[in-house]
Formats: sequence, C-alpha cells, structure tokens
Amino acid sequence: MSESARDLRLQRAQALVGGSVADIDTPALVIDLDAMERNLQRMAAFAAERGLRLRPHAKMHKCAELARLQMAHGAVGVCVQKIDEALALAAGGVNDLYISNQVIDRAKLQRLAQAVATRPAVRWAIAVDSTEGIERLAAALAVAGVQTPGALDVFVEIDAGQNRCGVAPGDAAAALAAQVQSHAVLRFAGLQAYHGKAQHLRDPAERSAAIAHAAQAVQTTREALARQGIAVPLVTGAGSGSFLLEADSRQWGEIQPGSYLFMDADYAANQPLPGAPVFEHALFIRSQVMSRSADRAVVDAGHKSHAIDSGLPRVAHPAGLDFANGGDEHGILRPVQPGGALPGLGETVWLIPGHCDPTVNLHDVMLGVRGGLHRGHVERVLAVDARGALG
Amino acid sequence: MSESARDLRLQRAQALVGGSVADIDTPALVIDLDAMERNLQRMAAFAAERGLRLRPHAKMHKCAELARLQMAHGAVGVCVQKIDEALALAAGGVNDLYISNQVIDRAKLQRLAQAVATRPAVRWAIAVDSTEGIERLAAALAVAGVQTPGALDVFVEIDAGQNRCGVAPGDAAAALAAQVQSHAVLRFAGLQAYHGKAQHLRDPAERSAAIAHAAQAVQTTREALARQGIAVPLVTGAGSGSFLLEADSRQWGEIQPGSYLFMDADYAANQPLPGAPVFEHALFIRSQVMSRSADRAVVDAGHKSHAIDSGLPRVAHPAGLDFANGGDEHGILRPVQPGGALPGLGETVWLIPGHCDPTVNLHDVMLGVRGGLHRGHVERVLAVDARGALG
Repeated sequence: MSESARDLRLQRAQALVGGSVADIDTPALVIDLDAMERNLQRMAAFAAERGLRLRPHAKMHKCAELARLQMAHGAVGVCVQKIDEALALAAGGVNDLYISNQVIDRAKLQRLAQAVATRPAVRWAIAVDSTEGIERLAAALAVAGVQTPGALDVFVEIDAGQNRCGVAPGDAAAALAAQVQSHAVLRFAGLQAYHGKAQHLRDPAERSAAIAHAAQAVQTTREALARQGIAVPLVTGAGSGSFLLEADSRQWGEIQPGSYLFMDADYAANQPLPGAPVFEHALFIRSQVMSRSADRAVVDAGHKSHAIDSGLPRVAHPAGLDFANGGDEHGILRPVQPGGALPGLGETVWLIPGHCDPTVNLHDVMLGVRGGLHRGHVERVLAVDARGALG
Repeated sequence: MSESARDLRLQRAQALVGGSVADIDTPALVIDLDAMERNLQRMAAFAAERGLRLRPHAKMHKCAELARLQMAHGAVGVCVQKIDEALALAAGGVNDLYISNQVIDRAKLQRLAQAVATRPAVRWAIAVDSTEGIERLAAALAVAGVQTPGALDVFVEIDAGQNRCGVAPGDAAAALAAQVQSHAVLRFAGLQAYHGKAQHLRDPAERSAAIAHAAQAVQTTREALARQGIAVPLVTGAGSGSFLLEADSRQWGEIQPGSYLFMDADYAANQPLPGAPVFEHALFIRSQVMSRSADRAVVDAGHKSHAIDSGLPRVAHPAGLDFANGGDEHGILRPVQPGGALPGLGETVWLIPGHCDPTVNLHDVMLGVRGGLHRGHVERVLAVDARGALG
C-alpha cells in the first residue's frame, strides 16, 4: 500500500515547526496553544476545587501527546470510545485508559484482553450494559491468560436519559454489577452515567432538567445496589455542556468532558450555565480564498476538512462573513451585511469548526501555534494518533 | 509520530485477504466488487456508445488502484479536486490527472509545477477561473524550469449555474482563455462546466432545466471564444446525477461522474432520468449490534465511519430497520413497523452510506469482497491513497 504521498505531507507538516503561521498549507487544523492551555488549566482548577476526578474524553482529540498533557495537569486518565483508540493511545504512552462504551465483538475483546495481558503498567477499564457482554469479556481475558484479580475495571452503564446504550437504572443495573463481581478477574468499578443529548440543550433550564433526570437514575441504581450489598466505588460521566450540573448534584465522582479543550461552534452556541467556567475557542481551520466573484469568496475548506454534523463552521476572521456549505472541498463566504467587504484571492480565512471531535478525525495532524493565529509561530505538530481507529 | 497502532490496523486488514466476510472487523468500508464492476462496465459502455471521453472523478474513491481500473475500462484519465490528491494518485501509478478546481496558493502551485517538471510521463491538467490564478500558475512553472510548450493543460471554468467557482460565461471566460494562450507553457484545453447542485435535484424535470441552463452557458462561451478566433478543444463536466443530460445536449465532449462506481443513498433517492443507465449500490459499511434494549439496537457505526452531510445511511440488511443518528460512534436502529424484529447483540448490520465521497475519506482502506456480502470472501484491500490529501 503506497504511503509515500502521505509521508511527504507529514514531513511537510513537520518542516513547519519554528516557522510562521503564514506558511501553513491550507486547509489545516490549527491549535491556538495559548488558548488551549488556559482551557486545560480552567478545567483542572474546577475539578480540583470540587474534589472531582477528571478523566477527559480523548475521543475528541485522539492524540496521545494531549492526553499526557491532560494527565500532567491533574487528569487521572482519559476515556475513549473504541478499543483501537485505546491501543493507539497506549502505544503513545498513555497509561490509564477507560473505554466508556460497550464492546461485544469477540475479536475486539481479544485485542483488549491481549493488551491487558501484555501491558500491565496500563490501567484498563471498559463499560458494559449486557449479560452477554460481561461473559464475553471474562472469556476473552481467560483466553489471554489473564488471572490477576481485578485486572480490568468494569463500569456498568445505565441509560441516564439518552436512550442510546446503557441498561435500565435500578435492579437491572444491580444484577449486572453482581455478575461483574462473580468474575474475579473483573473489578466492579462503578457506574457509567452519561447523558449525551443533554450537552447541547441550549437552554440552561432544559439542561438542568436533563441532568436532574440522570442524577435520579444514578440514585435509583445506588439504592438497588445497596439492597444487594454492593457499594458503588465511583460514578463517572458528564460532558463539556453539563459537567457543572453533575458536579452540583454530588452523584458523580468523576467527570469526562472532552470538547472544553478546543471548544467548537456548537458548544459555544449553548447559553452558559451560571457560574460555569468559560472556555475559549482553541481549534481553528486555516483556509484561503481560491475563487472570487463580485458577491462571494470561495475558500478551499469543505466538509472533507471539517465535520458538519452539528452545523457549519463559523468564520473567526475576517469579521462579518457568513459561511455557506460549498460541498466536500469548498466553503462559500458572503458578507453578513449587504455590500460588506469580502477577502481577496489568496487571503487567509480562519474557521471555527461546528463540532471538534469528527473534525479532528478528518486530519492526520494538528499544528500547535504559539503567540496567536495572526503573528504566531508553529511550535509543534500534534499527531492524531487514533485517527480512523474505528474498531 | 507514532504510527504503530495504525500500521497494525492496516496489517489486520491485509490479513483478511482470502478470508470470509464474517471476519471483517466493524465498522469497515466494504466494496461489493461484483456490483462495482457492473457499474464500471455500464458507464464505460455508455461513454463508448455516445462517443464521449470518460474521466471519472477520483475525489470520490481517492484510490490509485480503482483509478487505474477505470482507465483499463475506457476512461481517459481521472479528475481530482486537490493537488495533493493528484500527487497521491500519481505516486500510485495514475498517469492522466486533471485537477478540476482552482488553486491560487503559490506553494501548492509550486508542488504541481515540480510534478510537471519531474514526471513528464503523467499528463497534468488544471482548471482556472481568474487572471491571478493563470499568472501564478505560469510563474510557478517558470520557477520549476518547465519550458515545454503546452506542458500543462488548462481548462477555464465557467459558472454553469452552481454559483460556486467559475468565471461568468461569455466574454469573461474568453478573456481568460486568451490569457492562457499567451503563455506558451500552458495549453488552453477547453472549458470546465460542472453544475454540482443539479446532481441531487430529485425531479428529472428540474435536473433537465438546470443542465439546459449549463448548456446555454457553454454555448454562450463558445460564441464569445469564436468571436476571438479561439477554438474550444473540449468541454468537460457532468456528474452521476446528470451525465445523460450533458450527453444529450452535445455540448460536452467529456464526462466526469464519480459516484456511479459505488452509488450512495443520496444518489439513489433521485428519481431516475428516463433512459439513464442504472447503477447498483456497491459500497457498504459492515457494522454490528453492540447494545440492545427492548425497543432499539445500537450499532458500532456513527458519523466517524460514515459522512452524514447528505443524509443518514440506509440499512441494507437486515430489512425493515430505520437508522437514527447516534452520534460519532453509534447508530440507533428501530423497526420500521411497530413490533418489527430487531437484530441481536453481535449481529451484522449492513449500511449504505448517505454520501460516498466524504465517507471514503474517513477510512484508510476499503475491503473488496467477491461473491456477495453474505457468503463472499475478501478478495483484496484497496488503499484510500489520497485520504486526508486536503492541500
């Protein structure tokens, strides 16, 4: 399989280090490192102040270097959604990985079991929501020869209101916890309770109501577990749109925000929760105008360079421009005000992606810029280690 | 930059060759080779019958092996949208490449000029829609030392009704053609006239009206060129939704369909043009159920495995299921009929992507299956050589 053209592109990115932002090829994913580090510190400070464990979701950045940076700033580890993401980050030196998702496929579970067997220095954890899933997990560990008691942390996921994965709160969850405990090699680590749909409810009152529902689901499950004499070591969940609410509820001991590090246009469209830490946009697409006519400027960034599942990108710079979808490879800019200025051919246009997670997954690298987007320099290239790690 | 986890995934894909479809890790992009080859032959037969040059758009599959296969079945070459796509396919042995898009960035043009200088066995072509673009192109070739007359084919793109790129039809286009001709190293190769928005107009009458408008734009431009004594060697354009109309108009000498090879759910939702060749779905996502509850089955494929810009995937198998968006990593299936059957944990679910181009761009490889999705075997691994080639 020919890799040479891709390798040359990666070398081209590496050659930018130390150089000017103006030399970055377009379209490219650029991190404003100063803004990102402020976000990093604000979330770390929040978690420390509330006495919460912080386990950021690395499905967002898929980057071992950023996961290690988060852990150097107070995070206990990171979450991922896929076993192949976990393996990619472990290969990049991340030593505490929680797959906050179900895996039922025997071949995938065998990959995880193999990793548990061969990398005991990494702390591994996974979620379950079915009897079958627990039995297959235990069987895979047995095949891999893992016998250490509690070698793998297992969280029982409850449906906290999202109607996606997760067992019903209460007795059904307690039965799964007891089943986990019946396998010595598994440690019942607690409950996974994440309400994804709540994250983007614009109205703070609606978000509060959704997380109150999730907190009740946790409480109901705690009580069912208590009736069986099972303690809940930890409840983990929460995202960048709601984590203040989970913290206030005191039902969660660990929070899993991901997007706070980069912030995207969709999260920024939320009305903020009173008292919540504020995060800055730190992820941008550098694009440039490659076609101009009297009423529009067309940039070289379409939805192969930014995901549009949660809305189109916003134009960060220059001001006063609307972004319209131009397809896979184009974005169409028009002035917000009739007669407003349009950038000229070759001019740089900075975009804020609608949704950071799937946008990052389109790119092999992110370019970390120090000193601002306009006069800064490229400090380092951050590899998207788990890009395309779907399995 | 750590590549080992990715390399292992690619090796895992290679190890599937010769094996059963049932062993393909999920979610994965799978090509039904039998269906794809029928599509390949139908389009080749259509072009031959009509005496049209066929230049499929390789922005769709980004795969050198498939581009070479298309050329072995009558295609004169392929189109791409980006210089880095062209370089990736040239590295994979494709020797006739047309960048059917504008490039204004001097560094990118230098990459192209370098390729023209160092790979004379490849026929290179590009589109332009501005004076500045033509001058920068000529300057880049001069820097690279290219002096051969007509070393690079240049098409002037006219706005055929899409309101994206392209100069206005008529005199403005003729002026650009004359400017191209003023540079000996450039050959004025004709007009690029592609109406992207027309491709997905569901109603055949609306599609016909849009392409009639585009044909008029071509005719107007031919006349303006004739007044300047400039012949039009070729008009190139058309996509999988409209190519019959461009063929019938007799204004186009070359067609550029891409999606016909794989067909996606969005194109299949078009009402067919009477008399148009029929193409089959040949691109699928193999996914599996990883969570079940009474009213839904959750599969392990979300919009990190399939693009949703043109709608959600359809469920190809089992029958009777609706697909709802479950976010980046999940898809939520419910029965179309209340009380209908749901697949169980671990069961395979085949999806037809909404839009093939950006879906392929999410994957490193496509698995080519022979003998059908259910009982077939993996015949070969097709690399997405130009995945992420954005520049």
